[in-house]
Amino acid sequence: MPSEELTPEATIATAGEHALIRHIRARLTPAPDWLIVDVGDDAAVYEPPRNTLEVITTDAVVEGVHFDRQFTPPSAIGHRALAVNLSDLAAMGAEPRLATVSMALPPTLTLQHFEEIVDGLLALAERTRVRIVGGNITATSGPLVIDITAIGSVSRRRVLTRAGARPGHYVFVSGTLGDARAGLGQLRENPAAAASRASELVARYLQPEPRLRLGQQLGRRQAATAAIDLSDGLADGLHQLATASGVGVEIDAAALPVHDDARRYWGSADRAVQEAVAGGDDYELLFTVHPRRLGRLKAVERLVAGLKLTHIGTVIRSATVDIIHRDGRRQPVGAGYEHFARPL
Amino acid sequence: MPSEELTPEATIATAGEHALIRHIRARLTPAPDWLIVDVGDDAAVYEPPRNTLEVITTDAVVEGVHFDRQFTPPSAIGHRALAVNLSDLAAMGAEPRLATVSMALPPTLTLQHFEEIVDGLLALAERTRVRIVGGNITATSGPLVIDITAIGSVSRRRVLTRAGARPGHYVFVSGTLGDARAGLGQLRENPAAAASRASELVARYLQPEPRLRLGQQLGRRQAATAAIDLSDGLADGLHQLATASGVGVEIDAAALPVHDDARRYWGSADRAVQEAVAGGDDYELLFTVHPRRLGRLKAVERLVAGLKLTHIGTVIRSATVDIIHRDGRRQPVGAGYEHFARPL
Repeated sequence: MPSEELTPEATIATAGEHALIRHIRARLTPAPDWLIVDVGDDAAVYEPPRNTLEVITTDAVVEGVHFDRQFTPPSAIGHRALAVNLSDLAAMGAEPRLATVSMALPPTLTLQHFEEIVDGLLALAERTRVRIVGGNITATSGPLVIDITAIGSVSRRRVLTRAGARPGHYVFVSGTLGDARAGLGQLRENPAAAASRASELVARYLQPEPRLRLGQQLGRRQAATAAIDLSDGLADGLHQLATASGVGVEIDAAALPVHDDARRYWGSADRAVQEAVAGGDDYELLFTVHPRRLGRLKAVERLVAGLKLTHIGTVIRSATVDIIHRDGRRQPVGAGYEHFARPL
Repeated sequence: MPSEELTPEATIATAGEHALIRHIRARLTPAPDWLIVDVGDDAAVYEPPRNTLEVITTDAVVEGVHFDRQFTPPSAIGHRALAVNLSDLAAMGAEPRLATVSMALPPTLTLQHFEEIVDGLLALAERTRVRIVGGNITATSGPLVIDITAIGSVSRRRVLTRAGARPGHYVFVSGTLGDARAGLGQLRENPAAAASRASELVARYLQPEPRLRLGQQLGRRQAATAAIDLSDGLADGLHQLATASGVGVEIDAAALPVHDDARRYWGSADRAVQEAVAGGDDYELLFTVHPRRLGRLKAVERLVAGLKLTHIGTVIRSATVDIIHRDGRRQPVGAGYEHFARPL
């Protein structure tokens, strides 16, 4: 059945899979010259850039686990599905290049919502120069799932891992922390806020911006010794980075960058800090810098103008992750919120 | 909670995601030298082989759409999830190298079944020298979903696409057709047949063998002009190959390779042929050969000893897909069974 005859309220089950596939294919950008066999064959074939390494990550967003359709507009679902993967590439210092998209869709999903999901995903793909080279669509009796594998490239000497932090290195984060958690709180209280992207915090939750330029510059200029993205919150990020590097970290509560709106939302600076430490979904980068490389970091900072980089603590020898409060109290940082969704 | 304390009947929700991740990581083969950053970082980093192209495919298996847990043992679910992707790489002539695995699991899944799924998947991965380099596990309130992205490599001149068939080329298939459909029929009538892999047909359905060696040899020796895997059945494969190549195909019903057991199961040769044309899940290769390259095909046939290659028809100029019956009757081949699951 041609999609032209269908109203936007028609469901994807009525439209049929072929109409959905046609819709996506028609919206793809022209094949780049490195794409030798495009979508439509058994597999896609591409030429990797010379003298670089390939970087691969895969992450799924699942309705009811990672987003609630009540207050997450379809375009934001599509955006987030790709953004969470690009954020992982950013944390490796990689330049994204291509992705595959696998969707399990409830048959009752409307055609209009399907198209908005695709629009949100492809808008971010186009802006970050990521070509979708394959994928598949399946009906599901369960929640909506979008699973994406993203591939990028990076020079061998510019790979950022989690394992390079050493005692004495400074700990930095980009942007402000806890925005998404506050935005999610606002959405839960007032689902209508989504439609208007009512506040900056709501927008931060719905459409996280992967810090690609920052990650690439940190790697390219060898300004950072280790990096991780904060998909699961600062507490989790600190623990992961410390474990991978075989070190500890000590952070300064007073230094944590918190958005004014988030402070207002939580009612106090202390509460805002607490939420900033535990809250996930910020998709900022946490990274460490050798004290002698602060000059290089300044150069990076100029290139990512508008994105604040904040010194929040220090790498220590002892394998502990502590936060020093304003009153001088030292407290271990808990493991953070664990939802049932983990990377390998 | 350490998994050592858990009984096999414990559910994955009790075990916790960390135990599941640990279980998978512990079973991975050692990192090959081309794997620069292994699982456990934000993304994996690998070195592509020199002077080859990369081949990528992604495919999901969804409970209720692609398999029924009533009669598909967990190890077969894991096997199939990877096999369907490797079959796509085989059809491109590629050598598989790595994969990422994304699983959405119902919290009631037992730990034992989870481990059997992983075992089935990793057994095939090890045998085909595929390294799992990443993935994620999420809880779902819906059906079990395993989504895999597989990557392989192929030399530029050895890529097999669907588009190279020209009038006069011979049409071949590997193995026997319709086995999986007959095996599925047997399983539906007698779910207990799964446990014992009661018949060869049941085994063919549960554990399809991707035709990697055949695909690689067809490409390497430039013996085939086009190829496609028969995941969705012969009818679908013929149409896809004909459309991509801008040609038609005419096949000979009497030539179609049908397993003796399938003929017995369906009760007549005609019915068996009909099912072989429509039925999916065979994961054999359909390919075309230039008449002057039949010698090369003989060489390939010797290298894939035990796998029968059968000449079933001819590529024609007219854009039709016809079957010629034993009595000389010519009939258009329908589009085949369409389940709601399509690649991009």
